[in-house]
Amino acid sequence: MATSEYDDHIAVTEVPTGDPTARTFDARLDAGWVVGGGVNGGYLLSTMGNAVRATVPGKPDPISVTAYYLSASTPGPARITTTVKRDGGSVATVAAELWQSEQSRLTALATYGDLSALPDGVETTAEEPDLPPRDRCVPNSMAPDDVKRLAPMMERFDMLFHPDHIGWAVGEPSGRGVISAWFRLKHGREPDPISLLTIVDLLPPVTFDLGRPGWAPTLELTAHVRARPAEGWLKVRHATRNVAGGMFEEDCEVWDSAGRLVAQSRQLARLPRS
Amino acid sequence: MATSEYDDHIAVTEVPTGDPTARTFDARLDAGWVVGGGVNGGYLLSTMGNAVRATVPGKPDPISVTAYYLSASTPGPARITTTVKRDGGSVATVAAELWQSEQSRLTALATYGDLSALPDGVETTAEEPDLPPRDRCVPNSMAPDDVKRLAPMMERFDMLFHPDHIGWAVGEPSGRGVISAWFRLKHGREPDPISLLTIVDLLPPVTFDLGRPGWAPTLELTAHVRARPAEGWLKVRHATRNVAGGMFEEDCEVWDSAGRLVAQSRQLARLPRS
Repeated sequence: MATSEYDDHIAVTEVPTGDPTARTFDARLDAGWVVGGGVNGGYLLSTMGNAVRATVPGKPDPISVTAYYLSASTPGPARITTTVKRDGGSVATVAAELWQSEQSRLTALATYGDLSALPDGVETTAEEPDLPPRDRCVPNSMAPDDVKRLAPMMERFDMLFHPDHIGWAVGEPSGRGVISAWFRLKHGREPDPISLLTIVDLLPPVTFDLGRPGWAPTLELTAHVRARPAEGWLKVRHATRNVAGGMFEEDCEVWDSAGRLVAQSRQLARLPRS
Repeated sequence: MATSEYDDHIAVTEVPTGDPTARTFDARLDAGWVVGGGVNGGYLLSTMGNAVRATVPGKPDPISVTAYYLSASTPGPARITTTVKRDGGSVATVAAELWQSEQSRLTALATYGDLSALPDGVETTAEEPDLPPRDRCVPNSMAPDDVKRLAPMMERFDMLFHPDHIGWAVGEPSGRGVISAWFRLKHGREPDPISLLTIVDLLPPVTFDLGRPGWAPTLELTAHVRARPAEGWLKVRHATRNVAGGMFEEDCEVWDSAGRLVAQSRQLARLPRS
């Protein structure tokens, strides 16, 4: 397995408890994933996802992962606890919780299995994001320094925005509620099912495109990993259809270089204060 | 609060444990909600949702509820356990599990609050289902007797299908992967946030419209209740965009008589064996 900056950041170390169904892991949340008021929620999901994977041998891949975010995480040590709810047949379901200094940061449920054992058939009406060639997209490296200071995580990946979906960066949001971009992790770290749990939460909140910039805290996020991603650049799209009650749903799709929809997620988030 | 057949079926009775943060409730799963191989998953969600509501006084409404289904439920006694994960500010997050004879049927996470305390503003691009007048739709009462025997739950509600979305019933599925219908519970039981947790899982699996009839077991379902529903008939729509790996995602929207999108859900389910 390739090691990389990313793999180091999401690494977990088991703390022996003697109980095979209730396990404990140590992690170190890297300051490189700070964004706005906390640590990126997708990065937390992959770190926890590593602990879940270690809990159910033979079922290496997230199929469905749900997190409820309880408090803002900070860089530094974290503890992850996992409890097997059911492990039978082709999938296992696990409850997991991420703790910092006795405070629960997020509580989660996850079903894991082996994506490579699933049938190949695909019937989809979902449409791949229509992105211009990468050299005509707008790289996140062009972000102003103050933005990079607010979101050091932007140094962890290359994100090339659809030029029609970046108007908000110059005060001209489209109002459509859609943001899409090419994506890859730094240092050639290829996508895999665990990293997709990070990638579904990395684009700016789609509310930027609605003229509501600012941090949008996630209440709940569920990611479905639908296939093992091929190597290469990914296409990622965020969209929302319903802003109501001070909240919005944000749907994310991740498409791989083979043109396959490899992850679908939906989160419920609070509107940024404006 | 109106009592009705439905309210009796989802009723829970607390079993005192002395621990305010870990509670236990008894329920009786009614045979009237049987469908195919088990008890309807949305009905289970509302029954559990009643126990969650009783666990967090002052936060009566589900805002986000996620269930992972572990084994098929059967009519009869069930026990629900709830544990408060966080209760602070305007929302509380609770873990809940539904048990029958020492077997966990489903494990869940839920965030509750007070929907009537949320701001009124709505900006939506979501489109209300375009349903013909009810007298031109196809009522579930027309279902053949063998279907009614397989799905006694159809006696619990009136469901008037869009005539263009019912071809599967006569062996002519549209292949679009969309089913929509007018909906109301029997005996004039008006919709409320708890009943929406049932309603998001009551239409036939959208795979019927793809020519794949049969029971589609849910792995995971998350429902977001976006507003308190107005009285009257609801419009409900199921759609899927990605059938892959032997699974499909099913999105449900529920719109109320005031034309408001009151619930959005997504589930990941296994394709029916065919």
